[in-house]
Amino acid sequence: MNTSLAIKYAQKNQSRFVRELREFARFPSISAQDEYRAALNNCAGWLAAHLRSIGFKRARIIMTRRHPLVYAERIESADLPTLLIYGHYDVQPPEPLAEWHSAPFAPVLKNKYLYGRGVSDDKGQMFALIKALEAYLQTRKALPVNVKCIFEGEEEIGSRNLIDFLAKHKNVVQSDAAIVSDTSIPATDKPAITYALRGALSLELEIRGPEQDLHSGNFGGAIHNPAQVLCEIIAKLHDETGRIQIPGFYDRVREPDERERRYLARVGATDNEILENARAAAGWGAPGFTLYERTTLRPALSINGITGGYQGPGTKAIIPAKACAKLSFRLVDDQNPQEIAALVRAFIARLTPPTVSSLVKTQFAAKPVVINLKNRFTRAAVAAYQNGFGARPVFVRSGGTIPPVSAIHELLGIPVMMLGFALPDDRLHSPNERFYLPNFFKGIATAIYFFDEISKINFDGSEPCRRPTFPVNTI
Amino acid sequence: MNTSLAIKYAQKNQSRFVRELREFARFPSISAQDEYRAALNNCAGWLAAHLRSIGFKRARIIMTRRHPLVYAERIESADLPTLLIYGHYDVQPPEPLAEWHSAPFAPVLKNKYLYGRGVSDDKGQMFALIKALEAYLQTRKALPVNVKCIFEGEEEIGSRNLIDFLAKHKNVVQSDAAIVSDTSIPATDKPAITYALRGALSLELEIRGPEQDLHSGNFGGAIHNPAQVLCEIIAKLHDETGRIQIPGFYDRVREPDERERRYLARVGATDNEILENARAAAGWGAPGFTLYERTTLRPALSINGITGGYQGPGTKAIIPAKACAKLSFRLVDDQNPQEIAALVRAFIARLTPPTVSSLVKTQFAAKPVVINLKNRFTRAAVAAYQNGFGARPVFVRSGGTIPPVSAIHELLGIPVMMLGFALPDDRLHSPNERFYLPNFFKGIATAIYFFDEISKINFDGSEPCRRPTFPVNTI
Repeated sequence: MNTSLAIKYAQKNQSRFVRELREFARFPSISAQDEYRAALNNCAGWLAAHLRSIGFKRARIIMTRRHPLVYAERIESADLPTLLIYGHYDVQPPEPLAEWHSAPFAPVLKNKYLYGRGVSDDKGQMFALIKALEAYLQTRKALPVNVKCIFEGEEEIGSRNLIDFLAKHKNVVQSDAAIVSDTSIPATDKPAITYALRGALSLELEIRGPEQDLHSGNFGGAIHNPAQVLCEIIAKLHDETGRIQIPGFYDRVREPDERERRYLARVGATDNEILENARAAAGWGAPGFTLYERTTLRPALSINGITGGYQGPGTKAIIPAKACAKLSFRLVDDQNPQEIAALVRAFIARLTPPTVSSLVKTQFAAKPVVINLKNRFTRAAVAAYQNGFGARPVFVRSGGTIPPVSAIHELLGIPVMMLGFALPDDRLHSPNERFYLPNFFKGIATAIYFFDEISKINFDGSEPCRRPTFPVNTI
Repeated sequence: MNTSLAIKYAQKNQSRFVRELREFARFPSISAQDEYRAALNNCAGWLAAHLRSIGFKRARIIMTRRHPLVYAERIESADLPTLLIYGHYDVQPPEPLAEWHSAPFAPVLKNKYLYGRGVSDDKGQMFALIKALEAYLQTRKALPVNVKCIFEGEEEIGSRNLIDFLAKHKNVVQSDAAIVSDTSIPATDKPAITYALRGALSLELEIRGPEQDLHSGNFGGAIHNPAQVLCEIIAKLHDETGRIQIPGFYDRVREPDERERRYLARVGATDNEILENARAAAGWGAPGFTLYERTTLRPALSINGITGGYQGPGTKAIIPAKACAKLSFRLVDDQNPQEIAALVRAFIARLTPPTVSSLVKTQFAAKPVVINLKNRFTRAAVAAYQNGFGARPVFVRSGGTIPPVSAIHELLGIPVMMLGFALPDDRLHSPNERFYLPNFFKGIATAIYFFDEISKINFDGSEPCRRPTFPVNTI
C-alpha cells in the first residue's frame, strides 16, 4: 500500500493531532493512587471512543480488577502479518507538585515541547501509533497490516491485569510481532530500537519499633529508633563503591558479551550525555562499567522514597513508632525477581536487630528481557526509521522496565519491536515531563512506514524468539 | 496565710476547673506550624482573659516576633519573696492523627484521665498553678507571696522570644525563685522534684543530589541517590553498641558522680518501668548505664523524622532529588550545643560524598541544666508535696529539655523549682496524650501549700545557684 497519502494526511493534521494529545493528557490517570480510579475509567472511555472515531468500530473497554484495558482490532486479510500494538494510558504520580512550572494535567506548548505528565510516557508515544493508523484509515479505509491494539492502565504499577489477560486470552491477542513505543532514543537525529530492558523488583521495607511515637527527651538513648535502624539497614545494602552487598545478588548476572559492550560504547550514551540528561554534576556506581552500562547491562538498587516520624516544619521531639522505605531493584539477565526478593528478605531479616521488627512487602516484579532482533520486523523498523527520522537507527538497551514487554515476549513468543520517540531529557517520571513535538510527528511517519514495510514481509509464521547472545544482526 | 480556705475552695471547684482546662486545651496552639498562628493568638487571649477573671487585673499579652507571651503579676508586699511562675500554652504537633482515639483538640474524659494534645504538656500542669492562685485570690483577695507569671507560646520550638524577653527585661521578671510545672513524677504516690534537664540540639540535615527527581530505571546505578546517602550518613552517627560516633562528642560529658548514681538507682525508674512506659519490649543504647541513666545522665541522638522521594501508595520509580532528616541531640553537662553543632557539621561534611551536597540547619539549641537544690525553696517544695500528694518527693533528673529553665536559671541566677504533676505514661508528644486528673487536683493542692510555705521563708535575698556536684541535700 502506498504511504504517500497517509504521510500527507498526517502532515496536514499535525495541529489537530497535538490538540487531541493535549486532551488525552488532561486525564490524571495516575494508576498508583486509588482516588484517581474515576480518571482512569474516563481516560479509557475517551481512548475507546477515539479509536472508534478513527475507524476501529468495535474498540471497547475490558474491565479488570483494577483499571480497564482498551482493546481494538482490524483484521484486513489473512494473508497479511498481524501486529500487536501496545501502549499504556496510565501515568506516574506527578509529585513533587511544587516543582512543576505548569500544572501536570493541563498540558502546555512551549518551544516545540508539550509539557505535562504522561505526554511522553506513554500517552504521546502510543498516540503516534494511533495517528499513523488513522492516517491510513482516513485516506485508504484500510490498513496495510492486521492490527490488534491493547492499551492498559496499569503499566506504572506492574501490569498485573494486562498480564493475566494476555495469559488467559492468548488466542485473541496472538500476533506475529508486537510494537511498543514507550522508550527513548538518543537524539532526534539518532533514532533507536531498544532490544533489552532491565527487570524490576519493588519492595516496601517497614521498620517498627515502639507501639507509638515516644518523647525523644524522655526515651532518647534507651529505646531503639526505627528511623535510625531503617537507615542502618539501607546503608548496608551497598558497599562504598556502590556495589550491592546482598549475598548472592550478582550470582546470576551474566558476564557481558564483549562484542556487545564495544557496540554499545559506540552507539550508547556517553557518560557526559547521561550526566547532562540527569542534570547531575557527577556519576556514581560500581566501578568497571561506563554509566551507560551501569544503567543497562548492570543491576541497580534505588531508594525511591523514605518516610518516618515528623516531617512537617520545625521540630517534633519524638522517636517515631515506625519508618519505611521504598526500594526498587533493576535486574538484568539472568536474575529472577522472585529469587532476588528471597535474598533481600533473608538479608534484611539478618540485619534487623531484636529491638525492632521489619516487614518486607513486594509491590512489583518483572523479569529482565532481551529481544532477539535477528528477524525481518527489525529490517522493517530500520527502513521505517530511516524514512521517518531520516537516520539509520541504532540498537540500544534501556535501563527501564516495561513489564508487558516481557509478558508479551514470553507468553506469545513473538518479537517485541520497541520503537521509541521520546528523548533522554523528556523527564519521564519527573516534574515537567515533556514531549518533543517534532519527534511526535516523525514518530507518526515512522509508524506509517513501519506498517507498510511489514506488509511487504513474505509472511510465513512468526519469527523465532530464543534468547540471543548479542541479539542484533543488522548493525 | 492559712491554706484551708484555699484548699476547700479548690476541692469544691474541681469539676469547673476540669471544664476550664478542657476549654484551654481546645485551642490547637501548635507552635511549630505556621498555619496555627491564629490559634496561638486566640489561646493567649483566652489565657490573659482568664487570668484577669481570677484576679490578675492587668494580665496582658506581649507580642513577639512569633507567638505572644502572657504576663501577669501581683506584688502583695515588699517583705514577701517573689516567685516567677512559668508555663507554656503551646503544644507539640498532634501527628500522626490516625493514631488518636479521640480528636487531639477536643479533650475527652475517660477513667479519671483527660485526653488531648497539651492536656499534660503543659496546659494541664501550668493550669494547676493558676488554679492554686485563684483559690487564694477568690477566698482571701490576696496571695501569700508575690508572683510574676510568664506564659509563652514557643516552648516546643525553642523559646527564642521568651529568652530574648527575659534577657531584655530582667528587672521586670527578677524574682527569688521560679516554679515550673512541666515535668513528670515517677508515680502518683511518688512525687518528684526535677533537678536536671538534658540540653537539646535539633538539626535538619538535607542531602541534595540531582536537580530534580530522576527516572530510576533510566538512571539507577549511575547517579548517586540522596536518600541512600542520607541513610549512609545517619548510619555512621552511632556505632553498633549505640554509642554516638561523632568525633569529640563525648569530650565534655562529665563522669557521673557515684553518689548520685546510687541515689538515682534507688529513686529513679527501673529498666522495666521505662520499658513499660514506652510500651517497648526491649531497651537499647550504649552499654554501661541503666536505661534511666541513658535517658538522663547520658547524651543521646534521636532521628525525629526522615523524608525523601515518593511516600504515597504503590510505587514511583525515581531517584529523589533530595532527602532530609530531623536529628535531635540531648546533651548533658558540660556539653555545649554550639560546640556540638560544629562537631556534627564537620563530621557530616566529611561523610558527604562529592556526588551530592549536604546542608545542616540548626533549628533549636538549649544548654543542659542542673539546679542546685540546696536552698530553702526545696524545703518548701518537699513540705508542699508531702501535704499535696501525701508522700515525700524524690529528686530526679529528666531526659527532656525545657529551654526556658536554663534561661531563667542563667539569666536571673535563681533556683528553678521543677515541680511536676504528669505521669510517665501520659504520652507527652505522642498520640493520646493524657493527664491524670487526681494529679491535677493534687498539683493544685501542692501549689497552694508551696506558695504558703514560701511565704514563711525568712526572706533575705536570692539563694546561691552555682553548679553543684550532687545538688540535693535533703535526701
